[in-house]
Amino acid sequence: MSQNQLKDLSRLCVHTITTKPWCIEEAALNYATNGIKGITVWRDALAGRNIRQTGQMLRDHDLSIVSLCRGGFFPNSDPAKRKLALDDNHRAINEAADLGTKLIVLVCGSDPSQSLEDSRRQIQDGIAALIPEASAAGVKLAIEPLHPMYADSRSAINTLAQANDMTEALNSQWVGVAVDVYHLWWDPNLEKEIARCGRNDALLAFHVCDWKTPTSDFLNDRGLMGEGCIPIPKIRSWVEAAGFNGFIEVEIFSNDYWKEDQTLFLQKIIKAFKKCV
Amino acid sequence: MSQNQLKDLSRLCVHTITTKPWCIEEAALNYATNGIKGITVWRDALAGRNIRQTGQMLRDHDLSIVSLCRGGFFPNSDPAKRKLALDDNHRAINEAADLGTKLIVLVCGSDPSQSLEDSRRQIQDGIAALIPEASAAGVKLAIEPLHPMYADSRSAINTLAQANDMTEALNSQWVGVAVDVYHLWWDPNLEKEIARCGRNDALLAFHVCDWKTPTSDFLNDRGLMGEGCIPIPKIRSWVEAAGFNGFIEVEIFSNDYWKEDQTLFLQKIIKAFKKCV
Repeated sequence: MSQNQLKDLSRLCVHTITTKPWCIEEAALNYATNGIKGITVWRDALAGRNIRQTGQMLRDHDLSIVSLCRGGFFPNSDPAKRKLALDDNHRAINEAADLGTKLIVLVCGSDPSQSLEDSRRQIQDGIAALIPEASAAGVKLAIEPLHPMYADSRSAINTLAQANDMTEALNSQWVGVAVDVYHLWWDPNLEKEIARCGRNDALLAFHVCDWKTPTSDFLNDRGLMGEGCIPIPKIRSWVEAAGFNGFIEVEIFSNDYWKEDQTLFLQKIIKAFKKCV
Repeated sequence: MSQNQLKDLSRLCVHTITTKPWCIEEAALNYATNGIKGITVWRDALAGRNIRQTGQMLRDHDLSIVSLCRGGFFPNSDPAKRKLALDDNHRAINEAADLGTKLIVLVCGSDPSQSLEDSRRQIQDGIAALIPEASAAGVKLAIEPLHPMYADSRSAINTLAQANDMTEALNSQWVGVAVDVYHLWWDPNLEKEIARCGRNDALLAFHVCDWKTPTSDFLNDRGLMGEGCIPIPKIRSWVEAAGFNGFIEVEIFSNDYWKEDQTLFLQKIIKAFKKCV
């Protein structure tokens, strides 16, 4: 356990997908009622809504809109599909601006029909193409390295070192990284690479959950903080030593938790945030 | 596809677990009948058998016994259980000597109740404790880095860089590494780290299979070579550039393939070996 436990909820942000059974209006009301101060909005939660009005609704609940999830999925061996992906990322920037958030998280993508090197080049080209519009909209782009078990089809960026390399190559104040403990906890270079993105002022987001033993599903069996083996307080201490003091975002995909009463689940999240982060 | 396809089966080795429904006697007969020259023996295949006689049976089929799988699983927060693990590894060395193979593959282990750093120290201490007996028996020990999705409970050694670091720290001709494409294909440092273990004369084994999209099971949904996204010919070219020209070992855990007629599956393996390795 951390020597430096979080005593209040001022830095707690919850992702809408964490409480997927709730629509965004229910999520906002329940988060706010329970003293949660941040929300990260998944784009599916905005479907069919006026995005500006939804952003205002969130602010009326005194919620900080920490980020929009997610852009990315740049690589494809078919140039026409890469163009469609870029179009979708442009839309995401507009949605972020309309919503009133300053950050988009990028799940960068990977195409198993081509080499990882090709996918990585297409990711970098895709992000580079977005920078002018991101800058104009005042929205930063966070490269989120994904666990190597997703290298085939979700992200060819699988370590924080790769995300840092790409951020440095792009060399823009509008591009940085998102650190998610689920994807990165196993990496022996994690402390060093967290310090590195801190030095670049590029550490834009910090996501938490836990890794259960055993894990039964590649996507939707994440654990609540404290249920697994990730040294979350240690990683938080590295992130804070690197200068990050923003929201700590709870992002849990879990078929099991989505089956529960979400009000009770939210109480578990709050308790775990204070005890195990 | 490789410019340098394998034209015969002289370097093909199959792991007994790949054709798990067969007992070792059936596996040996079928491998030999089909012109396969190498076998790697999983210890469960030896249960209830006289190991020396089994080794002789394999040699009578003109099969090279490439390695014994597997030792390892060193870490445990309980010292008594670490002692039990060491005892089991001593038995594995005796079994390897009795069988007549010169190599044991180590799946190093990890204990989710303690830090990865502690698990790694216990792995290194465990291997160090085995070196005198390995040397006396003429059996080498290959550290196999496992995919990061197994960092919680199967191996705290998750990249070839880590395996190379540990091999160099142990500094013994009796310790090297095993390169398995399934575990390592995603790693942007793979070519460099393969060259590094080659320079150290520490590249002791090369395992192949494929990564399917999607993959449905954390353990037993490996693909046949050519079915997935791993650039096997490219990785083989790196391994050979590093000086390795030993057996290429087909290690496939697959609930689907284990349900098939194993004779037909073996034909698929042979075809895939010539076409996609």
